[in-house]
Amino acid sequence: MNTILIIIEFLGTFAFAISGIRMAAAKHFDWFGGYVVGLATAIGGGTIRDVMLGLTPFWMTKSIYIICTAAALMLVILFKKRLTQLHNTWFLFDTLGLALFTIAGIQKSLYAGFPFWVAIIMGCITGAAGGVIRDVLINEVPLIFRKEIYAIACLIGGVVYQLCSLLGFNLEIASLFSFISVVVVRILAVKYKISLPVLNEDDVSEGEK
Amino acid sequence: MNTILIIIEFLGTFAFAISGIRMAAAKHFDWFGGYVVGLATAIGGGTIRDVMLGLTPFWMTKSIYIICTAAALMLVILFKKRLTQLHNTWFLFDTLGLALFTIAGIQKSLYAGFPFWVAIIMGCITGAAGGVIRDVLINEVPLIFRKEIYAIACLIGGVVYQLCSLLGFNLEIASLFSFISVVVVRILAVKYKISLPVLNEDDVSEGEK
Amino acid sequence: MNTILIIIEFLGTFAFAISGIRMAAAKHFDWFGGYVVGLATAIGGGTIRDVMLGLTPFWMTKSIYIICTAAALMLVILFKKRLTQLHNTWFLFDTLGLALFTIAGIQKSLYAGFPFWVAIIMGCITGAAGGVIRDVLINEVPLIFRKEIYAIACLIGGVVYQLCSLLGFNLEIASLFSFISVVVVRILAVKYKISLPVLNEDDVSEGEK
Repeated sequence: MNTILIIIEFLGTFAFAISGIRMAAAKHFDWFGGYVVGLATAIGGGTIRDVMLGLTPFWMTKSIYIICTAAALMLVILFKKRLTQLHNTWFLFDTLGLALFTIAGIQKSLYAGFPFWVAIIMGCITGAAGGVIRDVLINEVPLIFRKEIYAIACLIGGVVYQLCSLLGFNLEIASLFSFISVVVVRILAVKYKISLPVLNEDDVSEGEK
Repeated sequence: MNTILIIIEFLGTFAFAISGIRMAAAKHFDWFGGYVVGLATAIGGGTIRDVMLGLTPFWMTKSIYIICTAAALMLVILFKKRLTQLHNTWFLFDTLGLALFTIAGIQKSLYAGFPFWVAIIMGCITGAAGGVIRDVLINEVPLIFRKEIYAIACLIGGVVYQLCSLLGFNLEIASLFSFISVVVVRILAVKYKISLPVLNEDDVSEGEK
Repeated sequence: MNTILIIIEFLGTFAFAISGIRMAAAKHFDWFGGYVVGLATAIGGGTIRDVMLGLTPFWMTKSIYIICTAAALMLVILFKKRLTQLHNTWFLFDTLGLALFTIAGIQKSLYAGFPFWVAIIMGCITGAAGGVIRDVLINEVPLIFRKEIYAIACLIGGVVYQLCSLLGFNLEIASLFSFISVVVVRILAVKYKISLPVLNEDDVSEGEK
């Protein structure tokens, strides 16, 4: 079981680091800036989760996440132009990372003895908070608050996981169904441009400078 | 005693969530974005406090805060226009929330065995840090750093609480006086446009793009 | 040993607080805003480190950091104009603070039983994360992601510390060499305008509004 969790966290790290480094590159950050934003995107959600659960942040126990982000940085530096062409590939990576992180967050919270509703929130935080930290660091309004069914996919994945558990499925089956539901929701949402309603469409008076 | 703390935290949650959701609406966030900003405003300060005190964040032990923010979101969605007219009502809610959160932060820190000066800081963090997180998430300069005697009201409330304790008053009396002082300071500051001096009025050279 | 750590953290606090308060002044924050930004710059990195290490944040055990930031605020308020002329002095203070914080972060992590690579990262976080928090609070893109060999100096200081340990030097000697290397790297980098390569020089398409 532990091995599955490690693989889950490793794959997610790479996909998320690439996403962070590319956003940093678009903002003309230097290599160090890119590395930090990549790392924050990759491990930020899991770190917030672990601190809230009262555990040592996962990346402090294995150096693989640090190395993995360095590899992602090297990839972006060496293959800058070709990476931009692979838009669909990065979308897929990002989506897989989202699904994997969500499930890792749910499982770790349940292991730590928290109830299901906390685990679902922690799944969302693990999957989506890294991207929010990334956007704060590059000084943009977080993307997931305005566009895309991103965190909602985590939420649905969490609910599917809980339903599978309630129906008596074992851990592997629950994870698989949850994984698939996150990926499918996200792909469908992007393909058919499904998005949540905006809170305030007409009034731009308040809060703008 | 415990019941009083729970009521204190619940009332504050609702008032702060509304404030966060309305700011998110002004920035054209979607429902999910509004919910997250509302939640972060409502539970952000208390979460930072609990993590620093080495405790499990308060909202992970009772689902009421999550539900309460959902109710606030629904209220904003359904009664958008009427909410804007109720400007004074929201100011009152926000002020009550500020006072309630400050006292909750002070009491929890003292229970955890920290000295009074830490408790006063934690009171300020509980009351004001949620609003800072809100402003970071909507990509604005935090309001309380430039305008309004907001966190200063927390600070004064904390000092009043400590004075009451030193004078031998019991917990209820100390809380009441502290509560009143936060509310009065805030209302007077807004009514008479009292604000702190600005650090640098003439020189705009550094730090601006 | 403990005394050395305390002195290390105290000196760094003052230098970093001044840096934060001056940036806040450039943004026309009020006194309270200046104090909070100064405090966050000074204790932010160490607080993140301590929370991740599972320890009580260092500033909650001694009130000296709070008082020290208040002194820095008073200095900035009273000697506004003269401070700007002392540009080189603040650069020196900031550099000494960086070196001192880095070593404090490394040592505290090693004491807590973490391996050297975690300690080096914690050294960088202690030295550089306060400045990132400062820039997020004043709503600017973090300076260290785009300019200056700042965090790289921490990194090199950490590696020097580890090398000294591996070579069997005692704690004082390792700290001294590490301190000198951070200071020298930073001064040379600024003097000769050495900087890291930028990730993406030609393409400004993505991520910008």
